[in-house]
Amino acid sequence: MDVQSLEFKDDTLRLLDQRYLPLQCQVVQCKDYREVEFAIKDMVVRGAPALGAAGAYGVVLAAREFIDLPKDLFLDKLEEASGTIAKARPTAVNLDWAVKRMKALIDANRELDNKDLYKLLLEEAHRIAREDAEANRAMAKWGNKIVPSNATILTHCNTGALATVEYGTALGVIREAHRTGKNIKVYVDETRPRLQGARLTAWELVQEGIPATLIADSVAATLLRDGKVDLVLVGADRIALNGDTANKIGTYMLSEIAKRFSVPFYIVAPVSTIDFNMETGDEIEIEERDKREVTHVGSERVAPLEIEVYNPAFDVTPHQNITGIITEKGIIRPPFKETISKLKQD
Amino acid sequence: MDVQSLEFKDDTLRLLDQRYLPLQCQVVQCKDYREVEFAIKDMVVRGAPALGAAGAYGVVLAAREFIDLPKDLFLDKLEEASGTIAKARPTAVNLDWAVKRMKALIDANRELDNKDLYKLLLEEAHRIAREDAEANRAMAKWGNKIVPSNATILTHCNTGALATVEYGTALGVIREAHRTGKNIKVYVDETRPRLQGARLTAWELVQEGIPATLIADSVAATLLRDGKVDLVLVGADRIALNGDTANKIGTYMLSEIAKRFSVPFYIVAPVSTIDFNMETGDEIEIEERDKREVTHVGSERVAPLEIEVYNPAFDVTPHQNITGIITEKGIIRPPFKETISKLKQD
Repeated sequence: MDVQSLEFKDDTLRLLDQRYLPLQCQVVQCKDYREVEFAIKDMVVRGAPALGAAGAYGVVLAAREFIDLPKDLFLDKLEEASGTIAKARPTAVNLDWAVKRMKALIDANRELDNKDLYKLLLEEAHRIAREDAEANRAMAKWGNKIVPSNATILTHCNTGALATVEYGTALGVIREAHRTGKNIKVYVDETRPRLQGARLTAWELVQEGIPATLIADSVAATLLRDGKVDLVLVGADRIALNGDTANKIGTYMLSEIAKRFSVPFYIVAPVSTIDFNMETGDEIEIEERDKREVTHVGSERVAPLEIEVYNPAFDVTPHQNITGIITEKGIIRPPFKETISKLKQD
Repeated sequence: MDVQSLEFKDDTLRLLDQRYLPLQCQVVQCKDYREVEFAIKDMVVRGAPALGAAGAYGVVLAAREFIDLPKDLFLDKLEEASGTIAKARPTAVNLDWAVKRMKALIDANRELDNKDLYKLLLEEAHRIAREDAEANRAMAKWGNKIVPSNATILTHCNTGALATVEYGTALGVIREAHRTGKNIKVYVDETRPRLQGARLTAWELVQEGIPATLIADSVAATLLRDGKVDLVLVGADRIALNGDTANKIGTYMLSEIAKRFSVPFYIVAPVSTIDFNMETGDEIEIEERDKREVTHVGSERVAPLEIEVYNPAFDVTPHQNITGIITEKGIIRPPFKETISKLKQD
């Protein structure tokens, strides 16, 4: 069975609720854009590429909601709703990128009848979702070229079908290597504090029958040191022009240890994850999330109530630690400043 | 209030149950050595120095249980019980060290009446506990010398009063720095999978009123990189003659990142943690614990049942990454091969 993170039908965005996997397989139905905003904030849906598609459908739902208003008010409301959706989470560029793409379409078609504009927006959102699915398949094929037979691959967080429209970025490459018979093995970081590795990646790997072993995040260091990992594959939430990459907290730590022991370290992300307006990773805003993510696991409290918590959701891996970035247009390598700007021109 | 991990009175070893802190403050009463073995295995009591004292009292309980048997059988049973206790957990040398000390006393006094031998053993166990408490106070004083005023200290796992008979090793130094008015601040790794940092260290720091911030383990890397940590202080479960140190999983990762950014990295441990029979860390047996520690948090399952898990409880930090080892006899520095053998002669 192929996992699908989201589906849009009959003016409803159906999201596989990622908060309760692997215990419960529930679907959340969003019928207006505020429900989409909540779903993004509360991480019903997560993963940079999936956030892009979800955000685009959020704009469609706003258009549907305000379709009977006078044109000017319709456009105002659409503008406001788009801003709300784009700001639901700050670090992944794909959300902002997708909403901007919807807004550009609105701007270019302001004279159209509300109903026709709505139709255009729906088509554009479907196109964004379809393009993401196609990009994932392309990344998987490119990425598979650098996976040796019998490789042991370490991955972090969830970059699978759940993080995208389908197939996955880093996990898409892993899927492809498995499906092409490379006899691979995977170590999965559990990925504290939200445990996306344990809850989501482990679940996807089990579904797919890929041999996988779950580890606490800090175990990765000894595996890398002891030569037990051939390759690190992770996703990205935002890539700056120099190659600096924001990704789930813990990625930077992995990259330092991988570099120290010369283990290849690849980012797998669609071109939509590159922020062509950002020179370096220093400018990336890092989202801080609720302390409860650290003091509680599910309903279980694991720390004293009085303790302070620092809970950044992401960190930035400097380009010097990255062997290559696997995109749908091919694998780019250092110097990233040159290879990324070349990508923009293509 | 001073926290106490264990107390022996009226032939009962009372242990503060560390499995349920900080939610519940329960005491487990061990009335025979098998209950002590279970308490050690299930981590009712943990922390290398506390395991030493608990193990010694376990031998006392065995002597009490078999006191009415004929001498030969008494000694056989005591031998068997001692072996069982010493093997309850393999990595911390202090458990083995304390039981060996009790066995040496038995061997030197085989001719004594059972009751008199029992008395000697009880005195020896009390002495081991008292010596640990004194060693902690001495380590705290030595260690405090290298803590700058206004320092931000990063620590891992629990090395406090709960891990020792009282006061703590690394956390003892932190306590001392706070009590002497150095205006310190502490970052505490939550320490997956058992969350001793979140459950125990955060709790001790809150009790003591020391400003502290809890983080997911992988956050430490960016803090070290960004100059937000002045000093790393951790404990130890076994130190080899060359300075290689086994400690809670995650310590090695910290040591690599600290070294990379020239942040001083100190081990705080009593001389009883040094294994004078072990040349290097390569020989240290690393305990692997149940997969449930990773797949569940408390009663909450966080991973699919079918996933494989690799769950080592410890890792080995190479001596090259260690700035110094703070013992009750002073701070020793590289070359550890020389400074540790000098310590043995003292």
